Amino acid sequence: MCRWLAYSGSPLVLEQLLYEPEHSLIVQSLHSQLGAEETNGDGFGIGWYGDQATPAVFRSVEPAWNDRNLRELSGHITSGILFAHIRASTGSPVQQTNCHPFRHGRWLWMHNGFIGGFDQVKRDLVLEVDPLLYPGIEGTTDTEVFFHLALTYGLEDDPPAAVARAVGFIESTGRRQGVACPIQMTVATTDGDSFYGFRYSSEGASRSLFHSTDVTTLRALYPDNALLRKMSDDARLVVSEPLGSLQGAWREVPESTCVVIRKGEEQLVPFAPVAPAASA
Amino acid sequence: MCRWLAYSGSPLVLEQLLYEPEHSLIVQSLHSQLGAEETNGDGFGIGWYGDQATPAVFRSVEPAWNDRNLRELSGHITSGILFAHIRASTGSPVQQTNCHPFRHGRWLWMHNGFIGGFDQVKRDLVLEVDPLLYPGIEGTTDTEVFFHLALTYGLEDDPPAAVARAVGFIESTGRRQGVACPIQMTVATTDGDSFYGFRYSSEGASRSLFHSTDVTTLRALYPDNALLRKMSDDARLVVSEPLGSLQGAWREVPESTCVVIRKGEEQLVPFAPVAPAASA
Amino acid sequence: MCRWLAYSGSPLVLEQLLYEPEHSLIVQSLHSQLGAEETNGDGFGIGWYGDQATPAVFRSVEPAWNDRNLRELSGHITSGILFAHIRASTGSPVQQTNCHPFRHGRWLWMHNGFIGGFDQVKRDLVLEVDPLLYPGIEGTTDTEVFFHLALTYGLEDDPPAAVARAVGFIESTGRRQGVACPIQMTVATTDGDSFYGFRYSSEGASRSLFHSTDVTTLRALYPDNALLRKMSDDARLVVSEPLGSLQGAWREVPESTCVVIRKGEEQLVPFAPVAPAASA
Amino acid sequence: MCRWLAYSGSPLVLEQLLYEPEHSLIVQSLHSQLGAEETNGDGFGIGWYGDQATPAVFRSVEPAWNDRNLRELSGHITSGILFAHIRASTGSPVQQTNCHPFRHGRWLWMHNGFIGGFDQVKRDLVLEVDPLLYPGIEGTTDTEVFFHLALTYGLEDDPPAAVARAVGFIESTGRRQGVACPIQMTVATTDGDSFYGFRYSSEGASRSLFHSTDVTTLRALYPDNALLRKMSDDARLVVSEPLGSLQGAWREVPESTCVVIRKGEEQLVPFAPVAPAASA
Repeated sequence: MCRWLAYSGSPLVLEQLLYEPEHSLIVQSLHSQLGAEETNGDGFGIGWYGDQATPAVFRSVEPAWNDRNLRELSGHITSGILFAHIRASTGSPVQQTNCHPFRHGRWLWMHNGFIGGFDQVKRDLVLEVDPLLYPGIEGTTDTEVFFHLALTYGLEDDPPAAVARAVGFIESTGRRQGVACPIQMTVATTDGDSFYGFRYSSEGASRSLFHSTDVTTLRALYPDNALLRKMSDDARLVVSEPLGSLQGAWREVPESTCVVIRKGEEQLVPFAPVAPAASA
Repeated sequence: MCRWLAYSGSPLVLEQLLYEPEHSLIVQSLHSQLGAEETNGDGFGIGWYGDQATPAVFRSVEPAWNDRNLRELSGHITSGILFAHIRASTGSPVQQTNCHPFRHGRWLWMHNGFIGGFDQVKRDLVLEVDPLLYPGIEGTTDTEVFFHLALTYGLEDDPPAAVARAVGFIESTGRRQGVACPIQMTVATTDGDSFYGFRYSSEGASRSLFHSTDVTTLRALYPDNALLRKMSDDARLVVSEPLGSLQGAWREVPESTCVVIRKGEEQLVPFAPVAPAASA
Repeated sequence: MCRWLAYSGSPLVLEQLLYEPEHSLIVQSLHSQLGAEETNGDGFGIGWYGDQATPAVFRSVEPAWNDRNLRELSGHITSGILFAHIRASTGSPVQQTNCHPFRHGRWLWMHNGFIGGFDQVKRDLVLEVDPLLYPGIEGTTDTEVFFHLALTYGLEDDPPAAVARAVGFIESTGRRQGVACPIQMTVATTDGDSFYGFRYSSEGASRSLFHSTDVTTLRALYPDNALLRKMSDDARLVVSEPLGSLQGAWREVPESTCVVIRKGEEQLVPFAPVAPAASA
Repeated sequence: MCRWLAYSGSPLVLEQLLYEPEHSLIVQSLHSQLGAEETNGDGFGIGWYGDQATPAVFRSVEPAWNDRNLRELSGHITSGILFAHIRASTGSPVQQTNCHPFRHGRWLWMHNGFIGGFDQVKRDLVLEVDPLLYPGIEGTTDTEVFFHLALTYGLEDDPPAAVARAVGFIESTGRRQGVACPIQMTVATTDGDSFYGFRYSSEGASRSLFHSTDVTTLRALYPDNALLRKMSDDARLVVSEPLGSLQGAWREVPESTCVVIRKGEEQLVPFAPVAPAASA
C-alpha cells in the first residue's frame, strides 16, 4: 500500500508539513503504523499549486526518507495546497510514471489501495477509458487507470458522481471475473480549489483515513504547537494516518464516505458506487 | 532512434563485443554516425543466454557510456548469444520498462525505429493484442506493443510470418488514421537458437542495418585482429552500424529484407508486410 | 567538460532561461557547439535564491534533456538569481554529490574545466583545506575541492582574492608534480547578491565564456524578443556559450579575467593566480 | 546499519542464496530482525568470483527488495564465492560509490557498523592512508576509509594483522578526539581463496554475526532442505543474521573474534586491535 497527505490552508514551507511533524509522512516512509506495509519505500511524489495554470509535480523512484532533492525542495517551496504520497508497490514497477500524484490539467489524483485482480481486469478497464484520454496514461498502475476512468465519467464536472461511476464500473468488472474484493481505496483529488477525499472498499473494511479537526480550537488547546501557529483557521489536512499524537487533532473518516473541503468548509457525505446499469 | 547489436557465435566475454571494437556500441551511445540521432543516451539494455531456461536481461535508464554496472558485468559475463541496445527516446519516458530488449519466455526482441502516430494508433494496436498476452505489457513504448502484436500472430512458431502480419496490421491501422509513414523499423528477435533481423519501412527508406561477413575469410585478411581471432567460424553479427572500419567486414542488409541466422548459416529473404485482409 | 549559465535580474520562471532560448542549456546538453565535448549528459544541477536564508539546490544524475523533474520544476519556480550546470564527467563518477552547483551557506559554486593530474595532486589539495571545512566535502570532484580551497582562503570575504590564492596553490602543487596544465577553468560563484565569474587556464587557452550585453539596448534592437521583454534593465547572463544567435547580444569574457556583477553593474577586472609564496 | 552475507562452497545460482531462504537477505532488506534498523533500503551490492582475474561487483542505490536487475542477475549468475550487502545509511549519501562491497585488486570488503564520530576523525584517518592508495577512495563512507587503512597496513599479506592495526588506529584516533565508541564492526573480506570475518566493537557489544555449521551434519538432519542439497560439504556461510529458523544450523560468532575459512576449514581466533604505539 501507500500513505498520503493532502493539505489546504495558509501557504506553508512544505517541510513544515512533510518533515517537521512528529509522525510525518517521511517518518511513515520507514515506519508506518496503520498501513498494510510498514515500509513505503517504492518512490514518492508531491504536487502543489503555485502561480501557474497547472499544479507542479515532483516524483522520484527513491525512498522518501533519504531523498536529498525532496529535502531540498521542501525547504524552499511554499504552497497553500499540497498533495504528498509515498509508495509501497503492490506489484507494478518502481518508476516515475507509476508515482502519485497523477495530473490531468488542473487536477491531481492520488490513492492508497488497489484494484483487485488488476491483471485480469486491466484490459476491460482500459477499454472503457475515453479514447481521447487513453494516450494520457503514461504508467502501468491501477491508480492511473482508475483516475482515467473517473476523468472519462466527468471528474472535472462532478467529482463524487464520477468517482462513484468509476468505482461501480471497477466493481462490476471485477465481480464478472470472479474477483472477491474488486476495490480497496482511499483516494484524494483536487483542482486546487475544492478537495475531495474518498474512503471505500468492496469488502467494507477500508484502509485508514483521517481528517484534521478545527484549527482554532486546537490552537487554543496547544498554544505552543509550531505547526498550528502557522496554519490559518481554515486549514485542513486529510491523511492516511495521523501526523502526531495530539489528542483531539484527528478524526477518522467513516467507511464509505466522501470528504469535501471547499473554502475552509468541510463536509462529510456518504459515498456509494454507482453500477454501470444504474448509470446507463 | 536507437542503435543495436546482435551476436551469435563462440562464447565471448561481453566487453569484447560491447567495448573493445573501434566504433563499439558504447562509442555509438555518444557518437553514432549513421543514426537519426548522434546521441543514444536514454537508457540501454542487454540480453544474453546462459544455462538457464530463459535469457537474462539487464536494463538501465543511465546512458551506457558511463554506466559502471554495464562496464562491470560486461567484463565478467560470457555468452555465445548477445542482444545489446542503446536508446534514444522518441517520446516515451526514460524508464527501465521502456528499455530494450524485451523478453517473453525464451524470446528477446529489440528495435530501432518507430510506429508513426503512435499516440493515435496505440489504442487500436493494443486492442489487437491477445488478451492473455496483454498483461505482459509493462512499459509504454511502441516497440513493446509491436512485440506483443508479433507474439499474438505466432512469433514463437513462424517469426517472419508473424512479423509480416504485425507490420501489416500496424500499416493498415496507421493509414486508416492518416499516418503518412506508419512504420520505420530494424527489428531483431531470437529464441537463442535462431536469429531474425528485419529491415523495413513504409516509406522504403529504412534505418541502416548491416551484417558481418564470413569470419574465416576476414581472419585470413586480418590475422592480427583480436576480436576475429576469438570468434568462431560460424559467428555472426547484425548491427545498426558497423563496429569499425575494417574493409570487407560489413555488408548492408537490403531494404525490405529479413536476415535469418541458424547454426551459423545466414539467409537473406525478402520481407513484405501482410495486410489484415490478406491474412484473414 | 561542462556548460553553465548564471543569471541575475528580474524574477523569471526558470523555463524562460533554461528551455525557451534557441540554443538553451538544455539544447546544449545534447548539442554543445563550443564545448570540449558535444554531449553534456552526466547529470545536471540548478541553484536559485528564494525567500529562505540559503539558496535551494536541485541536482540529478540523469541527462538534462529528458529529465521530467527538471522540466516540471523549471515551469513552476521563479527566481531572480539562477545557477544552472550540465555535466560531462572527466572521470569522476556520475552521482548527485558530484553535480554542480555546490553550496556552502549562502554561496553557490560551479565550474567548467578541470584540475590537471587530479589523481596525483588531490591528496595535497585536500590537506590544504581548512580541517573545519573538510567534512563538508561530500563528493569526489576536482570542482568541490577547488571550492573548498577557495573557502579556506576567504571566499566569503573577498572572492577574487580567495580564488586567486586557490588557483595559485593548485598551479604550484601541480607543477611540483610535473603536471603540464594544472588548471583549466571557467568558474561562477555568488552569495545571491554579488556574482563573480572567472575565465583562466594555466596554458592561456581557456574554455569559452560570454556575458550578455545591455538589456535596454538589446530590447530596442529586438522589440519582439520574448525573453528580453521579460528581463529587467539590470539583468545579466554569464554563460559558457551564447543562448542564441542574436547579433550583439553576447560579448566574450577575455582570457584571465574576472567578471563582477553587483546591483546590475558589471565590471571586468584582470585575474591572475597568487602563488603560495607571494601570499605567505 | 546494514546486513551482509558471505558464502563459499560449491557454485550456486545466486538466487538460491539471495532469494530462496526463508529469511533471505532480500527479506531482511525490508524486515531485518536483529539489525539496528529494521529497514535496509539505502542501496545494495554483490560481489562474486568467476573466471576473470578480479571479482565482479554489481552495486545499486535502489532498495534490494524491488530491484529488477538484482532479481534478474541472481537468476542467471552462478558462483562459488558470493559477498552480498544491503545498506542502511548512517548519514553518508545513497550513491553507488558508497555501496558495499568495495574492491581492490582481488580483494572484496564489506561492513556492518560505523566509525564513531566519523566527521571529526575522517581527515586524520584519510591522512594515514598510503598516498598511493588514496586516489582509489571513490566514495565517502567510513567503510571505504577503513578498507584503505587495512590495505595500507598490509591486508593483502596478513589480513588479521592488518585489520588489527587499522582498528587500533581508528580507536586511538577516536579516543584522542573524545569519541566514546570509536568503532562498531562486523567486517568481511576475501581474496577469493580465503575468507576473513571480524566481529568487534570498542564497547564490547558488537552487532550480530553468525556462521553456518557443518553441512554434512545438517543435511543428515534435514534431508529435504533444498539449499542444503545443493551445497557442497565444505560450503560455509557467514551472515549478519540467520537466513532461516533451522535448529542447529547457525552458531553465533563470539565477541572479539575473527573467523577464517580456507579450503572448507573454519577457524575462530580471538581478535584484538593493535594500537599504533605497539605496532610502531
